[in-house]
Amino acid sequence: MPPLRPKFIIGAPKPLAEAQRVGYAPIGRFCGFASSSANQGTKIAPGVRQPCGKRWARIPWQPRRGVGTKTSWEQWHRQHGQPKRSNAAGALAVVFGASVIAVLAAPATSWVKERVDIKNVDDNIHIDEPEDDQDTEQTYRLAEVAKHDQAAESKWIIRGTAVYDITDFVACHPGGKVILRACGGSIDPYWKLFSIHNKPEVQQVLDDFYIGRIDARDLDAKGNVDWSVLGSDCHAVEDPFKDDPERDASLIVQTAKPCNAETPGNLLVDFLTPLRLFFVRNHLWVPRIDPKEHHLQIELSDGEEMSYSLEDLKEKFEQHTVTVTLQCAGNRRGEMNNTSNGKTSGLAWSVGAIGTADFTGVRLRDVLLASGYDVDKACTACPNDPESDRHIHFCAPSDTYEQSIPLQTALNPTSDVLLAWEMNGEPMPRDHGGPLRAIVPGSVATRSVKWVERVRISCDESQSNWHNRDYKCFGPNVRAADLCQKDWDEAQSIQELPVQSAITNIIRSTKQSPVSVQGFAYSGGGRRIVRVDVSCDGGKTWRQACLRKDDAKGTRRWAWTLWNIDWPKDQVPEDAEFVVKAVDEAHNGQPQTMDGIWNFRGLLGNAWHRVPMASQS
Amino acid sequence: MPPLRPKFIIGAPKPLAEAQRVGYAPIGRFCGFASSSANQGTKIAPGVRQPCGKRWARIPWQPRRGVGTKTSWEQWHRQHGQPKRSNAAGALAVVFGASVIAVLAAPATSWVKERVDIKNVDDNIHIDEPEDDQDTEQTYRLAEVAKHDQAAESKWIIRGTAVYDITDFVACHPGGKVILRACGGSIDPYWKLFSIHNKPEVQQVLDDFYIGRIDARDLDAKGNVDWSVLGSDCHAVEDPFKDDPERDASLIVQTAKPCNAETPGNLLVDFLTPLRLFFVRNHLWVPRIDPKEHHLQIELSDGEEMSYSLEDLKEKFEQHTVTVTLQCAGNRRGEMNNTSNGKTSGLAWSVGAIGTADFTGVRLRDVLLASGYDVDKACTACPNDPESDRHIHFCAPSDTYEQSIPLQTALNPTSDVLLAWEMNGEPMPRDHGGPLRAIVPGSVATRSVKWVERVRISCDESQSNWHNRDYKCFGPNVRAADLCQKDWDEAQSIQELPVQSAITNIIRSTKQSPVSVQGFAYSGGGRRIVRVDVSCDGGKTWRQACLRKDDAKGTRRWAWTLWNIDWPKDQVPEDAEFVVKAVDEAHNGQPQTMDGIWNFRGLLGNAWHRVPMASQS
Repeated sequence: MPPLRPKFIIGAPKPLAEAQRVGYAPIGRFCGFASSSANQGTKIAPGVRQPCGKRWARIPWQPRRGVGTKTSWEQWHRQHGQPKRSNAAGALAVVFGASVIAVLAAPATSWVKERVDIKNVDDNIHIDEPEDDQDTEQTYRLAEVAKHDQAAESKWIIRGTAVYDITDFVACHPGGKVILRACGGSIDPYWKLFSIHNKPEVQQVLDDFYIGRIDARDLDAKGNVDWSVLGSDCHAVEDPFKDDPERDASLIVQTAKPCNAETPGNLLVDFLTPLRLFFVRNHLWVPRIDPKEHHLQIELSDGEEMSYSLEDLKEKFEQHTVTVTLQCAGNRRGEMNNTSNGKTSGLAWSVGAIGTADFTGVRLRDVLLASGYDVDKACTACPNDPESDRHIHFCAPSDTYEQSIPLQTALNPTSDVLLAWEMNGEPMPRDHGGPLRAIVPGSVATRSVKWVERVRISCDESQSNWHNRDYKCFGPNVRAADLCQKDWDEAQSIQELPVQSAITNIIRSTKQSPVSVQGFAYSGGGRRIVRVDVSCDGGKTWRQACLRKDDAKGTRRWAWTLWNIDWPKDQVPEDAEFVVKAVDEAHNGQPQTMDGIWNFRGLLGNAWHRVPMASQS
Repeated sequence: MPPLRPKFIIGAPKPLAEAQRVGYAPIGRFCGFASSSANQGTKIAPGVRQPCGKRWARIPWQPRRGVGTKTSWEQWHRQHGQPKRSNAAGALAVVFGASVIAVLAAPATSWVKERVDIKNVDDNIHIDEPEDDQDTEQTYRLAEVAKHDQAAESKWIIRGTAVYDITDFVACHPGGKVILRACGGSIDPYWKLFSIHNKPEVQQVLDDFYIGRIDARDLDAKGNVDWSVLGSDCHAVEDPFKDDPERDASLIVQTAKPCNAETPGNLLVDFLTPLRLFFVRNHLWVPRIDPKEHHLQIELSDGEEMSYSLEDLKEKFEQHTVTVTLQCAGNRRGEMNNTSNGKTSGLAWSVGAIGTADFTGVRLRDVLLASGYDVDKACTACPNDPESDRHIHFCAPSDTYEQSIPLQTALNPTSDVLLAWEMNGEPMPRDHGGPLRAIVPGSVATRSVKWVERVRISCDESQSNWHNRDYKCFGPNVRAADLCQKDWDEAQSIQELPVQSAITNIIRSTKQSPVSVQGFAYSGGGRRIVRVDVSCDGGKTWRQACLRKDDAKGTRRWAWTLWNIDWPKDQVPEDAEFVVKAVDEAHNGQPQTMDGIWNFRGLLGNAWHRVPMASQS
């Protein structure tokens, strides 16, 4: 029997037509509330939208463990605590139970103080009566489903042999409009591609949109959908990666679609990594964007928006070139899998998910200033004031990716956060974010959002899954299953990176020549590497490597430091194990082993890097 | 035979009288040069003074290894490299060999490009002919030496039985006028007190001022000075520490004079450390300064000076209270002595050379702005430009202490660098820097200079020994004897501190009650502690401690985080070893052991802190 699926419209003191266009919430599954600020929205159920001065802001969807039909208001509050406040008075919508809807036009700050009185339900609110339960299951022919593609008004998908009408969900999909690609066909290949969907909560969400099953006449002998009934090819999933650029054959491919490929360590020899060798870390396919058409939206916390074409940015602002090392948070995850703690989840990178380039563009700080943002005020705001702006969101087109950084990272006068269109003096390659990429020096590469289309100032961190779930690091004892939403919410998002170093080459030209050991060292937050210690006996004794000179550009040290050291042949034992560890200007170093820093996501592996001589001979 | 000791005046295109007053250089020992900027002076020999717009700036004295009578100009340059440039054109004085003196009135930047031509000797330069060597050694009666005390025009000291006329050296003494205390008597008790003098180079410097020996009639049977001939007491060294404040009896005293005393770890239980328990780290005695008379000099890089009384500061600027943890760079040095690398030099602190207080004062940034300093320009200056201001020096009265911090640390809008007169709401205690102390949040405590009297903006770091020699950290393989001056010059001065944590209490009320483990965690640079991992099995398995809430004040997290965790009694093994390690918001952690971070000065010991249960039972 399909789950109960009544429809209703919530929280719409602003034009009802607009609310109807975007805001349908499934009932019986979530409690939710909407606050009223221009662009904030936290702890909100799918389909709940909030009004702001100019438009309806999309509210990120977050499934909440334990929030279901049987959760009372008090239980919900107890579990999730006081919601973050919003900036302005406005509408508040509360949905719980199966049929109670309350909308309160009042300052959002006050809502937790009083039980919402259903007598306050706004006249604008319309409630559709629940449809009657159906005793028999509805079935659909495959050809009919195929008509409900992304062009159709009503959009359906198939999962297994179940059919779902996701029309109302599309706007709430955390991955954005990408989901439209699956309409009229099966979602299964996409879920296989994007394994983030393989969670019971996600299936639960989908269940709310269940409308029936595929007719038995369109199933094969094994009970699977028989796509052949539609004729050749028309059932095939269009390959979303067909427009991806070609990559250099020397990259080590971890996954092909989306492309995740690292630079072989021994090729990381240049201070500026050649573009063709720069590691590729993509969460989806590579969009094809016409630089002439591309516009950047700046969205301030009062709802004001400014739009800049690429030409605008180039003409209106001073251009800067900054040398930045980008490193994936999961670099060296492969080694972390080898501890007694067990495997981690994620791509098993070796040392090559890192690279350095000159990025050219304009300072985000300058663009914000020109957009009328009060940078001075924001710089000196108390960090404990929940009302103050504290984060900057970077969004890729169609909500395909979103991350945020602390506001101060961009506003600091010594900040070099750029909107960049050049990499090593060439137009930014599509694979690396062209035509426009946010560059956040000193921070984990994921914050340098590719194909950036929207910059949003907010009092909250981004609530996208990529931000909220993907780049957080827990203790060595913690397993994913131990965590509830509160744990995720409270965990620090990875921003500045810790000290890292690796050996990339151990070169012995002849048996008589010295052994030349080379590598890189890097620290986040603009902190310079001040020392690199190298050992040839596994870490018992050390010598200092020579730090190579370079002409890194920037207000602080955003780039790695390449190093090398020669070892007289006769001082290299037969069973030599070379080890490197670095020290940055805050005198932080690296842990001896991966054991103490192990985490189930395999992030931030920065133990001493060990390479047996034998492996290089 | 006493060393050759001719006198001459150097480098004085400005009024000769002034040069004569302050500038006599010993010849035959040092090469030196003076550049012309208002307040810069590096690589300079004792006695060399430089003119500036308004006055003669004192140039720190630095003995340079290998610079002696036999060092040629080229050798000197090869050893020491190109000197740092100075800000303006002016006088350049070069002294080398035994009799060649050259003074070149030219931009100092050009001096290394051309061999100085002695034909350019300025007319203002007077050279006293060397006195004839004396075949017989001059002797002095003790009573005569005693007359040459600090009040006398000519100031003498005794070392052993040798007599030195240090009149010309007093102004060049890196420790400032403190040396006057010894005049008319023996320097020996002071050198015993301040062991920094126990180096051959220091004796070499003194040798240049040798004038003879104590008459045999004033020596005892063993050949030592017989002070009794002067009558009772008048030979006694006045105890410079007699005015030191009383300290709490519970502090653990490492040295009494100067006072260095730490808080017992088990008393570090309050978020704000009570003043009476706050660790004391003094390099000298505690001066007695009348707050009403105390003035702060602000010295800009163009030579401009501003003076502020304490009342001025309080009335003219907005007051701020910031919660700051101060930690000595040598905290936990005691543990570092226990590695296979051997002993380190310095005070063997346990975990208690750390404390946290609310400091109230004005932002240095505000004072610099009001003093006419172009903060915006300085903020955006290229960090690689040697001409730009890059450091702020903090000086205690009479040059008794001096340190510097990077300019950006104070100019950043989120910086909370204060000039503070209150600590935990009380007037700043004398022991902690009253009446006025520089507070540099996030940096090693030594940069928070006590009794601050002068703030100087410079393109160079402070050249004081306390700054240049005392707080630098080398690799585990390096011994002090391996280092030449260049190594010291190039080593990074410790500013921001790495992640630190310690267990302060393991409490078991009864055999049946849970074991409560408590401690602190801290990171420098304003980086918040995001996680504290605690183990009861020596680091094999971990649990996360509860981070205690507090109301730390400041634009960033400058304060430690107190933590605690309860262990059910039956989960604590008999041989339990509790271990703590912390993680900060840049996801830096702590090294597993002290081995890899050992350094001969015993600085920055931040390995996992281990406390066997047995030690607390």
